[in-house]
Amino acid sequence: MKYIDGGVTSPKGFLAASAAAGIKYVGRDDMALVVSECPAVSAGTFTTNMVKAAPVKWDMAILDKKETIKAVVLNSGIANACTGKLGDENNEYMASVVADELGVDKEDILTASTGVIGYQLPKEPLLKGTKLLKEDLGNDKAHGEKAAKAIMTTDTVMKQVAVTFEIDGKEITIGGMSKGSGMIHPNMATMLGVVTTDLAITKEMLTKAIKEDVKDSFNMISVDRDTSTNDSLMIMANGLAGNKLVDKEGENFEAFKKALSMVTKTLEKKMASDGEGATKLMESRVCGAKNDEEAKILAKSVITSNLVKSAVFGSDANWGRIVCALGYSGVEFNPDKIDLYIMSGDMKEEDKLKIFENGMATDYLEEDAAKIFAANEVITIADMKQSDGCAVAWGCDLTYDYVKINGDYRS
Amino acid sequence: MKYIDGGVTSPKGFLAASAAAGIKYVGRDDMALVVSECPAVSAGTFTTNMVKAAPVKWDMAILDKKETIKAVVLNSGIANACTGKLGDENNEYMASVVADELGVDKEDILTASTGVIGYQLPKEPLLKGTKLLKEDLGNDKAHGEKAAKAIMTTDTVMKQVAVTFEIDGKEITIGGMSKGSGMIHPNMATMLGVVTTDLAITKEMLTKAIKEDVKDSFNMISVDRDTSTNDSLMIMANGLAGNKLVDKEGENFEAFKKALSMVTKTLEKKMASDGEGATKLMESRVCGAKNDEEAKILAKSVITSNLVKSAVFGSDANWGRIVCALGYSGVEFNPDKIDLYIMSGDMKEEDKLKIFENGMATDYLEEDAAKIFAANEVITIADMKQSDGCAVAWGCDLTYDYVKINGDYRS
Repeated sequence: MKYIDGGVTSPKGFLAASAAAGIKYVGRDDMALVVSECPAVSAGTFTTNMVKAAPVKWDMAILDKKETIKAVVLNSGIANACTGKLGDENNEYMASVVADELGVDKEDILTASTGVIGYQLPKEPLLKGTKLLKEDLGNDKAHGEKAAKAIMTTDTVMKQVAVTFEIDGKEITIGGMSKGSGMIHPNMATMLGVVTTDLAITKEMLTKAIKEDVKDSFNMISVDRDTSTNDSLMIMANGLAGNKLVDKEGENFEAFKKALSMVTKTLEKKMASDGEGATKLMESRVCGAKNDEEAKILAKSVITSNLVKSAVFGSDANWGRIVCALGYSGVEFNPDKIDLYIMSGDMKEEDKLKIFENGMATDYLEEDAAKIFAANEVITIADMKQSDGCAVAWGCDLTYDYVKINGDYRS
Repeated sequence: MKYIDGGVTSPKGFLAASAAAGIKYVGRDDMALVVSECPAVSAGTFTTNMVKAAPVKWDMAILDKKETIKAVVLNSGIANACTGKLGDENNEYMASVVADELGVDKEDILTASTGVIGYQLPKEPLLKGTKLLKEDLGNDKAHGEKAAKAIMTTDTVMKQVAVTFEIDGKEITIGGMSKGSGMIHPNMATMLGVVTTDLAITKEMLTKAIKEDVKDSFNMISVDRDTSTNDSLMIMANGLAGNKLVDKEGENFEAFKKALSMVTKTLEKKMASDGEGATKLMESRVCGAKNDEEAKILAKSVITSNLVKSAVFGSDANWGRIVCALGYSGVEFNPDKIDLYIMSGDMKEEDKLKIFENGMATDYLEEDAAKIFAANEVITIADMKQSDGCAVAWGCDLTYDYVKINGDYRS
């Protein structure tokens, strides 16, 4: 099981393309297409927001009734959310023109949009972009990269990853790309993610794998607590690796889940550290909680505190805010029993600094704590000393630039 | 029922004082004392954070068992939270030295602290400060103001208010002061609040009044979603107005509640608009919800969205973020049915701008929306069209200065 240089085009039989359709952005690619040569078993997870964008509603309906799909088309610039019936029609139009170009049914096409809420997708650029996408399709690394770049909005870096592993002596590859920088919050960030694999697997097991995976990956990151209207993670498995069909739990399913986790966790950390305006990656670990569920709530509470995030930005080891955030999480615990540690990403676990023990500050040196908070990767570890529940959440610091980017997003 | 120029010393029989004890701040008053000439019936509401500061634990225990108290002593600079047994001892010391100066029992003294978490309160300044407080006590307006100033931390303006009304032909006065700027979040902001009144009322009815009041006042503001360890609102009623004892529900109790609401809502709005780094007051109204509880959840979700707050700061009428925040609040509704309006604080209700109707943008003019978002007070109104549940929440914009203040709080 190892990382390889690549993305969505790394598994056998997947093509990708990008195009400058001119939907909203000028002078850059703003549409992407990922196509499987043969029908691919597909599954997905989508935003929990009551307000679901048109493409999210479309995809959920298709995945409910169809076993396989052919392609995913994505656009950046306009989110096609809060757009009413006309938004649904425009989304269906996007699926239809792509389907026409590929010679398949519109219901073989999943869609995804990201960008400003409330604007309608213009049809003409969609049509033009789709023709360009068709011409551009290629299965090499460069095409995967171009697609990953085309879906960026306020992202500053392109996010893709690929992993290979073996099942039945066959080499299996998983590739993924994602975007997400603001409106990033569990559950499901404002993220679009497309994962491809040449594994042969049933829809039931693929769905199970992705739903279990996001609980510990995409649902554990937060940039700003704003769960978006468009979050979508879609996975396609086309079976071209030639392995024996994975149709039940067991060794092969576990191997796939492990490799999938390498893909999603990598994308997820890339998104957290590329949070809007972020200068640092934050990791919040909680151990010793009553159970994993409570540990998750506690870890997320720390990672989403504006005060903790500001302190990390300012390299001010104001750990009282971490304890405070644990305290208002809604989880019950005895504050006089907990311990708190901090460490930087480049420190060894055994060198972590204990700053709070049984309800009181230790006699740690302020300069040691400040040095840790000044690092590029700040890790906080809360030991609740209740039982053995554990969780890890990822986020980023809150900076001037977050405010700047979001005070001035549309113009 | 009308506002008068004053604060905690406005009701009959209340004295206040402030002193520069040198607990953490240098060259400014950092201790305050509010004393009732005669024993005052008292009640309070406190933080819901699992991690409660030493003074919060002290006050809750006293209010549980005692009918009346004599005074409230407050300090700024150090929060005395996450300070373990030593913190409890230091808090008891603060109550004891004040009690000694006033010639009463230590359990006649409520305490409150605000400032950095995790530091111990130093005894020597407490003792020195207490002696200065005793010398300074006075019942005029200036002394009320000095006390209100002494409890400020990152607050930029002093917050006090007074209201008079009549019961049984007797003039009743309510005065209040509060501080709160960061770590402001329902339920109970990082706020300290002291309310005084000369009303004669039973402890039972006073407790009922304050607990019902905060649901619609202090629990409906948010600066940063961080519920602090120290939030305390304490009310003392000394009965010197000479009215017939308010000991049950009815006209007199309702009159008191209405006047109390004028006091708390005024303090609350002052805190919201003085949120750390804030340049604008935000008001989020929700009507037509299934019930008031759901309306509160929806209104708070909008007021706490970093993306909405950033948009208000940037005067960018990016209303999609408001709909998005309603959508992830956890409340169920049909996004295709809701309407959204915006208006500025100086506009008449009937001139409010409808920007979203039945799930789609209206044909409003962008320049009209931008003008509203550029105002000092931005009001959003969501009509859920489900039933008649209503709520209002207050907050402020998210600015560079919030990040600056909180990245650099302790130094």
